[in-house]
Amino acid sequence: MKPEFLFVPGPVNVPRRVALAEARDVIYHRGEEFAELLKSVDAKLKRVFRTENTILYFTSSGTGAMEACVANLLNSNDEVLVIEGGKFGQRWRELCQAFHVKHHVITLDWGRAIHPQQIAEALDKHPTISALFIQLSETSTGTVYDLESIAKITDKRDILFIVDAISGLGVVPLEPDKWGVDCVIAGSQKSLMVPPGLAFVSVSERAWQRVAKSDLPKYYWDFNAAKKNLYFTPFTPAISLIMALDEALNIILEEGVENLLAHTELYARATRAAVTAMGLKLFSERPGAVCTAISVPVGLNSKEILEGLRRDFGIKISGGQDHLKGKILRIGHIGDIGPKDLFGVIAALELTLHKLGYKLELGVGVRAAMEVFAES
Amino acid sequence: MKPEFLFVPGPVNVPRRVALAEARDVIYHRGEEFAELLKSVDAKLKRVFRTENTILYFTSSGTGAMEACVANLLNSNDEVLVIEGGKFGQRWRELCQAFHVKHHVITLDWGRAIHPQQIAEALDKHPTISALFIQLSETSTGTVYDLESIAKITDKRDILFIVDAISGLGVVPLEPDKWGVDCVIAGSQKSLMVPPGLAFVSVSERAWQRVAKSDLPKYYWDFNAAKKNLYFTPFTPAISLIMALDEALNIILEEGVENLLAHTELYARATRAAVTAMGLKLFSERPGAVCTAISVPVGLNSKEILEGLRRDFGIKISGGQDHLKGKILRIGHIGDIGPKDLFGVIAALELTLHKLGYKLELGVGVRAAMEVFAES
Repeated sequence: MKPEFLFVPGPVNVPRRVALAEARDVIYHRGEEFAELLKSVDAKLKRVFRTENTILYFTSSGTGAMEACVANLLNSNDEVLVIEGGKFGQRWRELCQAFHVKHHVITLDWGRAIHPQQIAEALDKHPTISALFIQLSETSTGTVYDLESIAKITDKRDILFIVDAISGLGVVPLEPDKWGVDCVIAGSQKSLMVPPGLAFVSVSERAWQRVAKSDLPKYYWDFNAAKKNLYFTPFTPAISLIMALDEALNIILEEGVENLLAHTELYARATRAAVTAMGLKLFSERPGAVCTAISVPVGLNSKEILEGLRRDFGIKISGGQDHLKGKILRIGHIGDIGPKDLFGVIAALELTLHKLGYKLELGVGVRAAMEVFAES
Repeated sequence: MKPEFLFVPGPVNVPRRVALAEARDVIYHRGEEFAELLKSVDAKLKRVFRTENTILYFTSSGTGAMEACVANLLNSNDEVLVIEGGKFGQRWRELCQAFHVKHHVITLDWGRAIHPQQIAEALDKHPTISALFIQLSETSTGTVYDLESIAKITDKRDILFIVDAISGLGVVPLEPDKWGVDCVIAGSQKSLMVPPGLAFVSVSERAWQRVAKSDLPKYYWDFNAAKKNLYFTPFTPAISLIMALDEALNIILEEGVENLLAHTELYARATRAAVTAMGLKLFSERPGAVCTAISVPVGLNSKEILEGLRRDFGIKISGGQDHLKGKILRIGHIGDIGPKDLFGVIAALELTLHKLGYKLELGVGVRAAMEVFAES
């Protein structure tokens, strides 16, 4: 297979150190060595999560951990609020439907951000709501929500605050313990720079009290079983991915958690400047660091852009999902990406658009990105 | 970490070719290349499954796929039969409990095999039972069940026949299409020689009809979603493990599916001859090819045996689970193990027992194993 450099919002390019750690001899997951490994991973991962809450480990995609939250945190009588501003908010709604949980939905036009006041109003209107399900980064549209303000609303009302931070963890500011976020969900294949297959959930004390009352069916996702077997995990885990995660966390901590956040924000800022200079329109009302969503210019075909980048430059960026298919492009800023790669993808995008007849002064995007770097 | 050679019934030693395939560049799972890869994996995996039924792919441990079967194949009104002869039969029971499904259990002393007649009697007694959940290899005791005879009973009664073949697939005879097994569950970390993290379920036409009627809650495990997105999978899959699986299947097909089964059976036969010659007792009534379970000799401490093998020889074998902890040892025969490794583990076991004061003529076990090879 022809190699492709991934500028998508996950899965991401995996550093060679991490790939080779993944290829190491598999160790037995019921031995003390495995528990030592996971304990060490856990201490490091807590620094990226910025939490002292328990983190549970699941072998699954991030969606599995989202399902785990619904199945473990809720009682069949509960009433919840879901923010649906894209493909991943939709997933919260579908999960509530699957588990027959009564749910109120605030639906946003895809690309819009939730205004904290809308949440306060919904909670005032329906005082029986006991939990809020939301994204940190709604990556289908490149939008980041203002969770710090929202936390102020949920915290004083005893509303369980559950955040899908699958794509945003580590690269979008999130302070679960300071703000009072009860559960944070993440996955291995985003800023953690590991291939997909591991999902994580941090669980606050308030959340554990809800777990004790939950009557929804679960087995594989059972939080209590996961807590009881914390450093062994209840079922055979993806051992090689945990070995890879250990090495990826070493890299992240060598760079520094703050620097990971800062460099990703810088990449996103530079990309926004670049595409704006190229005359392209940002799709999101509140764009974040995970990926930059751009509206496909009128007269151009997104498929041809994606294919050109792939064919001529070995670069993979994302298109839109569901009704945004063909309407937007998304350039990811997470994973093993350096500044030179960022300049490269912008140049490649310029050349591809140019070849397809889009009018632009070649180099205008790269220069705008460089200026952001020069000023930073 | 000190390397350990795994003679456990999973996870297994991974061939270096497979480990390096796992370390390759991650490809994007929404591109055609990924679909081509999974299509190729699927064609090869069907040859190991010996089925033409649809195979569904889950990123999870095998237990996840077991839960998927309960959640997708049953209706809340269904009544099922569970065979509980060890840790994994117990898991079927616990899954039925978790999903509030009415279940009848045939409980066997751990180490005993189910007699097909017991199943016929239970089905006669409870004609409302519509599904049977069982293991191919109950690996907590090293016992293999006679599924061919059992299939004759379920097939003529329209009983859905669901088999956990997680440890047994590929090394214990199983002919789903010939016998009429509706669902076969397997995992990546057993005879398929891949690290853990992938689970598979084959689904017969009869089973799909039940899926259509199922009302139990599911989302991540949804069979219909998995079928709809067959070669993409509905949620981000463990891409690197699928690349590893592709290479592992190449190795298995180079050796030949029949030869994988034959060599594993030979290893198990040789091991049984060896431990018997050493004066040890086989624990299982019907031992199979996945692992050989041995009763710990009176006066010896299983922990000391396991630690001696680990410390002096870098060898990891398994002890017992739950109430069999301290009572049995299990030597696995699956994964990347050659004849020399088999002779080696037997010699190491002899020396370890000898050192701990067990009376035996050194070499008696190895010689017995060699004789089995000489005659084969």
